[in-house]
Amino acid sequence: FIERAFLLAEESLGQVSPRPSVGAVIIKDNKLISEGKTDPQPGNHAEVNAINKCNEDIVNSTLICTLEPHSYHGVSPPCTEAIIKSGIKKVICPIEDPNPKVSGNGFRQLIHAGIEIERNFSKKHIKRAKKIIEGFEKSLVYKIPFISLKIASSIDGKISTNSNQSKWITSEKSRNYGRLLRSKYDAVMTGINTIESDNPQLTFRDKNDNNTGYPRHKIVLDSNGKINQDAKIFDSNEKTIVFTTDKNKINFKKNNLEIFEVGNIDGRTNLSEIMKILNNLGIHKILVESGNILNTELIKKNFVDKVYFFISPKIIGGDKTSVGDIGIQNIKDIIMLRDLEYKYLDEDILLSGYIKEKNNVFRNN
Amino acid sequence: FIERAFLLAEESLGQVSPRPSVGAVIIKDNKLISEGKTDPQPGNHAEVNAINKCNEDIVNSTLICTLEPHSYHGVSPPCTEAIIKSGIKKVICPIEDPNPKVSGNGFRQLIHAGIEIERNFSKKHIKRAKKIIEGFEKSLVYKIPFISLKIASSIDGKISTNSNQSKWITSEKSRNYGRLLRSKYDAVMTGINTIESDNPQLTFRDKNDNNTGYPRHKIVLDSNGKINQDAKIFDSNEKTIVFTTDKNKINFKKNNLEIFEVGNIDGRTNLSEIMKILNNLGIHKILVESGNILNTELIKKNFVDKVYFFISPKIIGGDKTSVGDIGIQNIKDIIMLRDLEYKYLDEDILLSGYIKEKNNVFRNN
Repeated sequence: FIERAFLLAEESLGQVSPRPSVGAVIIKDNKLISEGKTDPQPGNHAEVNAINKCNEDIVNSTLICTLEPHSYHGVSPPCTEAIIKSGIKKVICPIEDPNPKVSGNGFRQLIHAGIEIERNFSKKHIKRAKKIIEGFEKSLVYKIPFISLKIASSIDGKISTNSNQSKWITSEKSRNYGRLLRSKYDAVMTGINTIESDNPQLTFRDKNDNNTGYPRHKIVLDSNGKINQDAKIFDSNEKTIVFTTDKNKINFKKNNLEIFEVGNIDGRTNLSEIMKILNNLGIHKILVESGNILNTELIKKNFVDKVYFFISPKIIGGDKTSVGDIGIQNIKDIIMLRDLEYKYLDEDILLSGYIKEKNNVFRNN
Repeated sequence: FIERAFLLAEESLGQVSPRPSVGAVIIKDNKLISEGKTDPQPGNHAEVNAINKCNEDIVNSTLICTLEPHSYHGVSPPCTEAIIKSGIKKVICPIEDPNPKVSGNGFRQLIHAGIEIERNFSKKHIKRAKKIIEGFEKSLVYKIPFISLKIASSIDGKISTNSNQSKWITSEKSRNYGRLLRSKYDAVMTGINTIESDNPQLTFRDKNDNNTGYPRHKIVLDSNGKINQDAKIFDSNEKTIVFTTDKNKINFKKNNLEIFEVGNIDGRTNLSEIMKILNNLGIHKILVESGNILNTELIKKNFVDKVYFFISPKIIGGDKTSVGDIGIQNIKDIIMLRDLEYKYLDEDILLSGYIKEKNNVFRNN
């Protein structure tokens, strides 16, 4: 049944920030009698949804949830309260809430009320549960969002031809998978150069080609305020957030457009400032689909947590590479990836992994 | 039993050029009674070796061989003659010899002598048989060697750091596999820059770290005659062939060194001339382990038949890429690969494939 709880949590990824996505199932006599997932604010949490939806006798049942039930009064009343009231006898849950307001308190409150807690999970399950809340956790600990880079390149590492053509290097299956990825993030981010050269919509469409509304936010870094009001990124209703160093240059308005003016560093928008603003907006997990310049700056400044490399077995040649100079001189300083996953998408390979942090490097600069 | 014949042929790859590598087994009453493989010149061909080594009654037996038996007097007398004399009743063989002196004549001679020929093979078997003789066939048809590029890069397509460090980007398993590959080629080729920066030996050593003597030839392109007599490439006895545009600058001698002076194109050695010389030396299959400049020139001039990309899940950044400008402006002109193979080597991926030829491009320029 934990599998079902995981799936419920994973379904809501990209939909409920600033809340963590949680899945919950209620079991009685080895039968699933109810299930729930987190609503976006101001709705209910997963545990309360599962309890409320339950049509069978809940007394003495078992609750399985993917994250420690929260124990304080925030936008919603504490889940622990609802669980205790319901008559649930046992709670099975792999991980503590990294939120210092909870972290263990949820479990303690439940134990205090006579509810049995089971936390005997495999490493694999714990990893999966932690992965679901990685954006929430990054935001809590570092006050900046979790950043993933998506890169589509040829096998010789090029993201476009010399004349900047990049449509399409990777296979249709890779591109579809890339769009699905977008929907699992709170926002997708790109630079003004990509807007100008590719004019992307940055949406995720369903099988009938209808816009799903995800990702909920689109972010454009546009230091010189060059964005055009006819850019396709405005064609759908999700909020578009533009960061610039000179707000006055953007002299048009859109219902779905929000503009932030930030500081200027070497002619570019100040990334640290941007990350803090995004975090305050409740945006915890961002997929970056951009070019060499933004990729390079994000990696160089240690903002990147995860990378997705879609590699297509083609040779382009030239110098349009995915990552520019990040200041590495010695092989020992190369950036290593961990928790690698390999996926075949037609002839392409998707290799994804997390950036291995060095002991002496601090994330937030 | 065809499997055994293939293995025998594959074992001799890199050892018998200018001959094609062939494996042969003799079967009687569904039992293997003898086997043979091609000797280097002036030894015997595989079929004759199998016949000569046979200690049981060969009359009415079946011969399985990976390539059509040759039918003319060359360094060795025709294999067809030996087969007919031996009393073998049936020959099973997947492909014709592409040599116009044979191509079907071998089978015709055998049929004429009353020997049954079976050529009912799966596509996979035919492909495997053709792969074994790909160097031999390229040399016959185009009068130049079959060229493979070996590239070891980070996932962002870089072959060294900014300060030219490349030891080691890929895993030990990848490097071992790369050295094994060398031994399956008639020669390994590199440029003087790689000699100067990495000082490689370009050998294949056995488990006890003894040199195997393969690849049999090492080739260095050294347009300005900069090679140093202390370079490690001279440390083993295999022949080292240096191509230069100014022979006088190389003022030392080695027993294992042969120097060719070739024409100068834009300050570099004339590749077309080099390919013809190598082909005349009986070198049919070359593995190139070099850097951006030679890789780029070989691809640009359509000399490359196959590529091996060893990709390590690490990020280096910078601009040291594996393939430079090959003149591609439009996505539709990107070089596609076919017959792809994927192999995991620890965390690395080896992606290998053949360059897809375009209809209107001629190989030899």
